[in-house]
Amino acid sequence: MEKPIRCAVLGLGRLGYWHAENVASKVKGAKLVCVADPQTDHAAKVAGELGVDRYTGNLNEVFEDDSIDAVVIASPTSTHADMITQAARNGKHIFVEKPLTVDLQEASDVLRVLEETKVVCQVGFMRRFDPAYAEAKKRIARGDIGKPIYYKGVSRDPGSPPAEFIKNSGGIFLDLGIHDYDLARFLLEAEVTSVAAHGSVLVHGFMEEFGDVDQGIAYATFDSGAAADIECSRNAYYGYDIRGEVIGTEGTLLIGSLRHRDISVLTFKGSSQDIVPDFPTRFESAYVLEMQHFIDCLLNGQKPSVTAEDGKKALEIAVAAKKAFETGSRVPL
Amino acid sequence: MEKPIRCAVLGLGRLGYWHAENVASKVKGAKLVCVADPQTDHAAKVAGELGVDRYTGNLNEVFEDDSIDAVVIASPTSTHADMITQAARNGKHIFVEKPLTVDLQEASDVLRVLEETKVVCQVGFMRRFDPAYAEAKKRIARGDIGKPIYYKGVSRDPGSPPAEFIKNSGGIFLDLGIHDYDLARFLLEAEVTSVAAHGSVLVHGFMEEFGDVDQGIAYATFDSGAAADIECSRNAYYGYDIRGEVIGTEGTLLIGSLRHRDISVLTFKGSSQDIVPDFPTRFESAYVLEMQHFIDCLLNGQKPSVTAEDGKKALEIAVAAKKAFETGSRVPL
Amino acid sequence: MEKPIRCAVLGLGRLGYWHAENVASKVKGAKLVCVADPQTDHAAKVAGELGVDRYTGNLNEVFEDDSIDAVVIASPTSTHADMITQAARNGKHIFVEKPLTVDLQEASDVLRVLEETKVVCQVGFMRRFDPAYAEAKKRIARGDIGKPIYYKGVSRDPGSPPAEFIKNSGGIFLDLGIHDYDLARFLLEAEVTSVAAHGSVLVHGFMEEFGDVDQGIAYATFDSGAAADIECSRNAYYGYDIRGEVIGTEGTLLIGSLRHRDISVLTFKGSSQDIVPDFPTRFESAYVLEMQHFIDCLLNGQKPSVTAEDGKKALEIAVAAKKAFETGSRVPL
Amino acid sequence: MEKPIRCAVLGLGRLGYWHAENVASKVKGAKLVCVADPQTDHAAKVAGELGVDRYTGNLNEVFEDDSIDAVVIASPTSTHADMITQAARNGKHIFVEKPLTVDLQEASDVLRVLEETKVVCQVGFMRRFDPAYAEAKKRIARGDIGKPIYYKGVSRDPGSPPAEFIKNSGGIFLDLGIHDYDLARFLLEAEVTSVAAHGSVLVHGFMEEFGDVDQGIAYATFDSGAAADIECSRNAYYGYDIRGEVIGTEGTLLIGSLRHRDISVLTFKGSSQDIVPDFPTRFESAYVLEMQHFIDCLLNGQKPSVTAEDGKKALEIAVAAKKAFETGSRVPL
Repeated sequence: MEKPIRCAVLGLGRLGYWHAENVASKVKGAKLVCVADPQTDHAAKVAGELGVDRYTGNLNEVFEDDSIDAVVIASPTSTHADMITQAARNGKHIFVEKPLTVDLQEASDVLRVLEETKVVCQVGFMRRFDPAYAEAKKRIARGDIGKPIYYKGVSRDPGSPPAEFIKNSGGIFLDLGIHDYDLARFLLEAEVTSVAAHGSVLVHGFMEEFGDVDQGIAYATFDSGAAADIECSRNAYYGYDIRGEVIGTEGTLLIGSLRHRDISVLTFKGSSQDIVPDFPTRFESAYVLEMQHFIDCLLNGQKPSVTAEDGKKALEIAVAAKKAFETGSRVPL
Repeated sequence: MEKPIRCAVLGLGRLGYWHAENVASKVKGAKLVCVADPQTDHAAKVAGELGVDRYTGNLNEVFEDDSIDAVVIASPTSTHADMITQAARNGKHIFVEKPLTVDLQEASDVLRVLEETKVVCQVGFMRRFDPAYAEAKKRIARGDIGKPIYYKGVSRDPGSPPAEFIKNSGGIFLDLGIHDYDLARFLLEAEVTSVAAHGSVLVHGFMEEFGDVDQGIAYATFDSGAAADIECSRNAYYGYDIRGEVIGTEGTLLIGSLRHRDISVLTFKGSSQDIVPDFPTRFESAYVLEMQHFIDCLLNGQKPSVTAEDGKKALEIAVAAKKAFETGSRVPL
Repeated sequence: MEKPIRCAVLGLGRLGYWHAENVASKVKGAKLVCVADPQTDHAAKVAGELGVDRYTGNLNEVFEDDSIDAVVIASPTSTHADMITQAARNGKHIFVEKPLTVDLQEASDVLRVLEETKVVCQVGFMRRFDPAYAEAKKRIARGDIGKPIYYKGVSRDPGSPPAEFIKNSGGIFLDLGIHDYDLARFLLEAEVTSVAAHGSVLVHGFMEEFGDVDQGIAYATFDSGAAADIECSRNAYYGYDIRGEVIGTEGTLLIGSLRHRDISVLTFKGSSQDIVPDFPTRFESAYVLEMQHFIDCLLNGQKPSVTAEDGKKALEIAVAAKKAFETGSRVPL
Repeated sequence: MEKPIRCAVLGLGRLGYWHAENVASKVKGAKLVCVADPQTDHAAKVAGELGVDRYTGNLNEVFEDDSIDAVVIASPTSTHADMITQAARNGKHIFVEKPLTVDLQEASDVLRVLEETKVVCQVGFMRRFDPAYAEAKKRIARGDIGKPIYYKGVSRDPGSPPAEFIKNSGGIFLDLGIHDYDLARFLLEAEVTSVAAHGSVLVHGFMEEFGDVDQGIAYATFDSGAAADIECSRNAYYGYDIRGEVIGTEGTLLIGSLRHRDISVLTFKGSSQDIVPDFPTRFESAYVLEMQHFIDCLLNGQKPSVTAEDGKKALEIAVAAKKAFETGSRVPL
């Protein structure tokens, strides 16, 4: 066996914990050597659960440790720019959760640092690694549907996060839509030239205070001549509903499914199936696969297929969508 | 417009009524001129509802009427042989409900009469006209699955008919299985060489008295080398479930669907769809299409695709299946 | 049997022919007594095919004939206002194809005439009678999904009509979208307060000349607080794709299916099913059921569930969507 | 972290390799400390790939090593009885692939040894751990379908293994059917009282030489009054097709799906989906979950839910089915 990539995970919230778990036990070629969280107690607990020797409440320690090859940044978005910069300056490769940064200026700064330091940086657009989306990419490349001309995305959450989260989320077009902006670029292989956005508060009145909506639709045009519509919703009172379509000049692809367990119950009331309940269930394997890709790239000296540039591009679209919604006008990019 | 085929319907139970309704309003080229039922009052009522000028309680009147071209026989099976014989002797074309007759001797007698009189006779194996089964036939003929080698049928009723019906039904392997025996011959294009059958009373204890079961399976071999299994059940506590499969040397066909209305309701309990509730719903169009075929054959001087010979063949298999179940041994044909 | 409603069909293009066929043979309580088309030869031919005694090339004859109870108007949209007015002034009940009229002023004029003359008028929004949409309406009324808050419609044609048709069609937001505007009103039970619209020419370059697009999306808000998005497309290179969703506060309804025949072919290449190929196939029963509803209303002295007012409302939304697309701004209603 | 269970894997064929891989990296609480195979070179290679310190070509070494807690037996079935006996006599817990042994006498002997030595023994009926079957069990226990009265299993392989394998396989009713016998007992919670079996050579003529068939059906009755039919086939020329149904007195469960990737390609030829290609793909997670269950039982001092007794019971049914097929008569148990 090759020498494994020694990883530290920074930030041990829900996502950070998963990343830590995946690095510790499911990703080949990686070794989790340290977990870090400002709440030292929590870091200690996670270290115990995952059988990791080291933990720390001081994230800077990690950057200074020469035995660490790569960091997984799952701390709050507001800290991303600083974390990436420190990691890069210390020669550590970086996996960072989406969104790359809070704003575009920060994203540009971060890209400059990455260019200078030559470290590898992958952004956590895990949907690209979901077997269904990954297969869609292959089919399109193979020409199964001719030239891709339209992307239609649906991202629906089973209800709203609490007001506290919404307040700091950047709004539905940024927080919820960003995965679909990345997927549209990925599957259409084109860049956005303009965005329009509309939305309404259908259920969660409290959102009005923050200028946010619980149901929105963004429309984008692309430099290839393609277009896209993306529905973002907090109103799936039945489960977690992520679907995509790519219309091509010779056919169309439907991606994803509501189905959870492969079982149907038939009674006189009808036939019923479980629906995928939440995003951990839907994208469990995607989280493992994206981390495996990151480690494989480090082991093989390759560039990840989702770079910091992709992180910045999706952020640009998100920021434009937010502005388009606020101004009521189409925003060119 | 060509001169329409003048039809009479004999026997106005549930099936007879549908045939009358279809002839009266949905089948092109046919004219319903008389409805007959031993219960004259009922015949009068049906005539009124369907706008038919003539009705009678004396079925023999129909046979003697030279203005009638064709009869639809939907009277009890025990009367079929006599009805067919009289109709044929009087030069009337015949559509007769399945099963052709009560026993094989009668079937042979009837076939002889039909041969002598040269009238057209179609048996009511309506599933052959169901768009899904008809399409399966086309696909097999086109070679989509290579050579057909196995037929797997499921016929499940949503519960049992009353004891009175079961008592006189001939048993599940005859009453319920006969459509699938015909479909197996139709789709495999082969004749049965042996039948085995097994079954159990799972729910309806009263059946034991009649030597019948509420769940059975028949296994048949064919002269082409193909084989088949056919499940007959009274235990579909969710709807009417008719499914078929044809395994071929290059693929397999699945025929039919449980789905009723094209609507899904999604809630946190799951996704649910309606199930086809009963046989009128499932085979509504098949009943119209089989009658249209009968009339078209009369208008064009063609032989129907489901003949009295087919009726006799299916009866032979059914009788063998019954015997195989009763004796516990495989019965050669 | 009650005295049937004596009907004439005006305009014998594809739709007019279907209506004539349905009235002649599939709708109970109706009698087709006359078919009319400016091309007298064609009218004669249709009369022969459908066994109708009378035909005419002079549509005015129909209005003056006191023995005719009702007319089915399937002539070009530009003639609707005049046809409706003449029919109403002559006391004839009216079934008119959608759209009601060419413009809103005409629609207002027509509504006034209908009010004065008290004749019954039904507009041909046949999707309301499609079993899936009709069932959706029932489920929503029954409370299965709580309060309906969002309608998502997809209407995709398998390619574009010829340039000549597109030129005079009024554009995709009017021609293709109008059914969904009606369905959104029908299923959300609310009126539109504003419309935005976006679109692109993805494939059919010739449309640019007419200011039309082959893929568009309209976003509407409703007086109940609900919202809707409606995709209109000429780019379904796989079949005829009509789908709808209604999101409610306690669940969601999915309406419709791509599936055509209930058969699956399984080979090593995968599982495949037929897709609904075109609108006659998809909505065959809806055309019969809407006409049956019209006749039933006349027989029972009831108001149809789809009135001329509904026709005008949908037209208003369509006109607003077109304007929104052309100006790039949201249009209030 | 608790002290992990130290495991050795005996036999490194395809299944043995998977078990080794799962123990090494996917099962929590287990540590793979040794891999053994008569081909020492192969054992060495596997040890290198999986990062295991020890390998051996002498399986007896493993039994004598006190530091090993448990063995996974994936050597040929003919060696199972001896392996189990040695492992048990040396106090090692046992996971053994199905079938438990070659014949019933051996199975009885093995059970006696296990009883004496009190070691834990789990048999590899991994389908019980497949999420769909496991969920079915829960739903039945919860009463979703009333009392279970019928099991219908379909197990179809995408073609036949080579003649050499078939020759030593024990025949389709033993080799292919054994999983379904176990599932029928598991889901119906009842024991078999009689078995009948029928079959044909539909495609693979060479099987006749070995008295085997490529398509068979077994019918079983149970002491609860329930019944079952189980289709075994080598003729799925489209993929790997494992389906199950459990009919209950208040509804029915359908288990499993042909669907592979959650993607549909729509073209004018129709809609198509991938089909599950093979058993590793279908049951990947089941293999991990069964091993996790084994380790969890060892860690918690619990009895596995699939015991050697279950292994013997399934073997009894398989032997009876084989005899029933050979004699043409129903065989009581």
